[in-house]
Amino acid sequence: MPISGFPEWLPPQRMIEQYVLDRIRNTFELYGFAPLETRAVEPLDTLLSKGETSKEVYLLRRLQEDPNAADDLSLGLHFDLTVPFARFVVENAGKLNFPFRRYQIQKVWRGERPQEGRYREFLQADIDVVDRDTLPFHYDTEMPLVIGDAFRSLPLPPAVIQVNNRKVCEGFYRGLGLEDTDQVLRTVDKLDKIGPDKVTAQLVETAGATAAQAAACLDLAAIAAEDGSFVDSVRKLGVENDLLDEGLGELLQVVEAAGRHSPGLVRAELKIARGLDYYTGTVYETQLRGYERFGSICSGGRYDNLASSGAERFPGVGISIGVSRLLGLLFGHDALGVSRKVPTCVLVALPQEDQRAECDRIAGALRSRGINTEVAPTAAKFGKQIRFAERRGIPFVWFPGEPDTVKDIRSGEQIEADASSWEPPAADRVPVISGVEDQAG
Amino acid sequence: MPISGFPEWLPPQRMIEQYVLDRIRNTFELYGFAPLETRAVEPLDTLLSKGETSKEVYLLRRLQEDPNAADDLSLGLHFDLTVPFARFVVENAGKLNFPFRRYQIQKVWRGERPQEGRYREFLQADIDVVDRDTLPFHYDTEMPLVIGDAFRSLPLPPAVIQVNNRKVCEGFYRGLGLEDTDQVLRTVDKLDKIGPDKVTAQLVETAGATAAQAAACLDLAAIAAEDGSFVDSVRKLGVENDLLDEGLGELLQVVEAAGRHSPGLVRAELKIARGLDYYTGTVYETQLRGYERFGSICSGGRYDNLASSGAERFPGVGISIGVSRLLGLLFGHDALGVSRKVPTCVLVALPQEDQRAECDRIAGALRSRGINTEVAPTAAKFGKQIRFAERRGIPFVWFPGEPDTVKDIRSGEQIEADASSWEPPAADRVPVISGVEDQAG
Repeated sequence: MPISGFPEWLPPQRMIEQYVLDRIRNTFELYGFAPLETRAVEPLDTLLSKGETSKEVYLLRRLQEDPNAADDLSLGLHFDLTVPFARFVVENAGKLNFPFRRYQIQKVWRGERPQEGRYREFLQADIDVVDRDTLPFHYDTEMPLVIGDAFRSLPLPPAVIQVNNRKVCEGFYRGLGLEDTDQVLRTVDKLDKIGPDKVTAQLVETAGATAAQAAACLDLAAIAAEDGSFVDSVRKLGVENDLLDEGLGELLQVVEAAGRHSPGLVRAELKIARGLDYYTGTVYETQLRGYERFGSICSGGRYDNLASSGAERFPGVGISIGVSRLLGLLFGHDALGVSRKVPTCVLVALPQEDQRAECDRIAGALRSRGINTEVAPTAAKFGKQIRFAERRGIPFVWFPGEPDTVKDIRSGEQIEADASSWEPPAADRVPVISGVEDQAG
Repeated sequence: MPISGFPEWLPPQRMIEQYVLDRIRNTFELYGFAPLETRAVEPLDTLLSKGETSKEVYLLRRLQEDPNAADDLSLGLHFDLTVPFARFVVENAGKLNFPFRRYQIQKVWRGERPQEGRYREFLQADIDVVDRDTLPFHYDTEMPLVIGDAFRSLPLPPAVIQVNNRKVCEGFYRGLGLEDTDQVLRTVDKLDKIGPDKVTAQLVETAGATAAQAAACLDLAAIAAEDGSFVDSVRKLGVENDLLDEGLGELLQVVEAAGRHSPGLVRAELKIARGLDYYTGTVYETQLRGYERFGSICSGGRYDNLASSGAERFPGVGISIGVSRLLGLLFGHDALGVSRKVPTCVLVALPQEDQRAECDRIAGALRSRGINTEVAPTAAKFGKQIRFAERRGIPFVWFPGEPDTVKDIRSGEQIEADASSWEPPAADRVPVISGVEDQAG
């Protein structure tokens, strides 16, 4: 029985997912990120120390455990990969080289109510850079470039990474004379959900804003640009503050570096806030063109205070691709396809059961040269064996004989072949993954 | 803080693990197994329906859940990949093509007391074939060949797969006149732990055996051979039974197919039983030469009754590599190494901070040709930047200039180079994984 919020793909979709993960991993490694996995569980106090998702934690309990025993650590499943990574860095600081660049591709779990594109179990693909004491800002500019390269390597609609900087917002609110900047940020973050009128009312009610201050906050949130022109737009609002200046300078660097790398990839969007508490500067969200209504499929930011140990601090910046969320949306819209249902390129037909050893030798010869091969399950009539291949999308059927022949069952072409030298066309060696555009074109 | 039983590797070990997983996956796909993942959780009644590990299940509970609410399904983390796979097959039978071949590489969890090489969270890599109604026996002969190929593709000591068949044991016990064959099997399974004298005593006490019957059971358990000679050895014990004959015929097929494929890979070992209840015929265990005392690192068998839905039955056969267990043992004995700590092949040195954009362009040109590249974190003195590379094992440092040069920091050789055409030696492109033998040789 399916369990709501715990998606399971059939093998063709899993082949697409693996392809996507391989491309993402390849891009991460091109940038020198080293692989890491952390355990699925964390002590409950680690999970509860940061951020708003703490309420969604799944706790673990052993079936045979004495419910009154107090000796066991209270463990929960991790709800993201950033909190466990920060814990790992502090724990292993003596064994790591800083700045430490890692990627991490793992399942995470949240006990929330499921809805479209929201899961209780899902796969995330994260990159982060952390350093001791201070982390140079240029790493904030690198994150969108890596993600841009990763998405461009996939048959997906173009991605737009929306960037903001908490220092811009906080500095602007302070410059306006507003003190409770967290409350202002939380309220402005609801803009897309509740609209400007309700945001204005709540800013006045809960953050002590005047009507003019609330209007200025909305003016800031309305600013967006694909180039550095957002700086002038903010200046025109006439607010002066050092933190604002610092934030604008940082945000400009991110936008300009992305503009040099891939025009259109990054957009300064001053309404982006990100809910989680631990971000201290740059924040990222990502939308796919044509799928904007589904929200962000890749998010992250700078966190200067997440990891610390005594007086030591490990500031970091990172970004996370919501792989299950992304694929769930695209599968739901039939936007990704695969050319066959199995990895198999060649089915070796079995003329008689007593020829299985010979067929196994043929399959072995093909496999030894990297050609994915199965032998037919039974010595059924050849028509039935060909249908076995057809139903799975296996392109070639091999007929043992003197000489052997191999048939492309799509074209019907059948040629003599030797298992020690025959090569399938390069495009047929492994299943081909395609987006809807490719399929149409 | 480390949590007992939940291992975490540092990035160099994770690189080795990824290499091992890539090779295993490649072998599985060469044999046409399609990828599958199932959710991490199953309803508790699915987990408890089979096998002896039920006592070790981790149950889930939402932190904010009303402990008295009865509306939620009781969920637990899966403790293996076979039980979830059987559930998946029954649930999705209408969408699958049979015989269905799949591989599945995922974490599993068991709440048992940790000890060396035993974990509470660990990675398994499984292959299985299931069919409707009946599954041809030749799939039982294929499993060891796939595993043999997978292990041979890795820098590991040779693997020996020990095979037995429950029909041999059950038929033999019946032929002897013993009725409670399950109890006999369970008792003989303790042979390596408690020795022949105690097994004899327990057979007499708990399974109603005479001294002569118990002795015959021990004689059977003592038989082992790398060829078909085990059949004669069993015959010489003078027991007659149809099920015994069937089992001997099956076991002989497995041993002979493996002998043709790779002599020495498979060994008939008539004391092998496997604890789990669901096996009905062939059973496999695997030891690495030199690590026999650590027990099986790859096990499985035939299960004719695990998956069923009403009158429909889905018999299967499968085998599972205990990846974490295998790597934990080898890491513990420093038996696997990697040539560097990061995927990075080239570090682009940064002469001045204002040259970062130019260095990023060089890095981009190298990455576009698949060369893993990082840019130095700061414009420190070149000596410090070279030490940054050395500490991570990055083999090349690139110096922007007119012209650019690239230095192999192992040999000190420095040559002029163009980022649009320079190629590292093939052996340096990605980290090289090696076993101890390779390192010594």
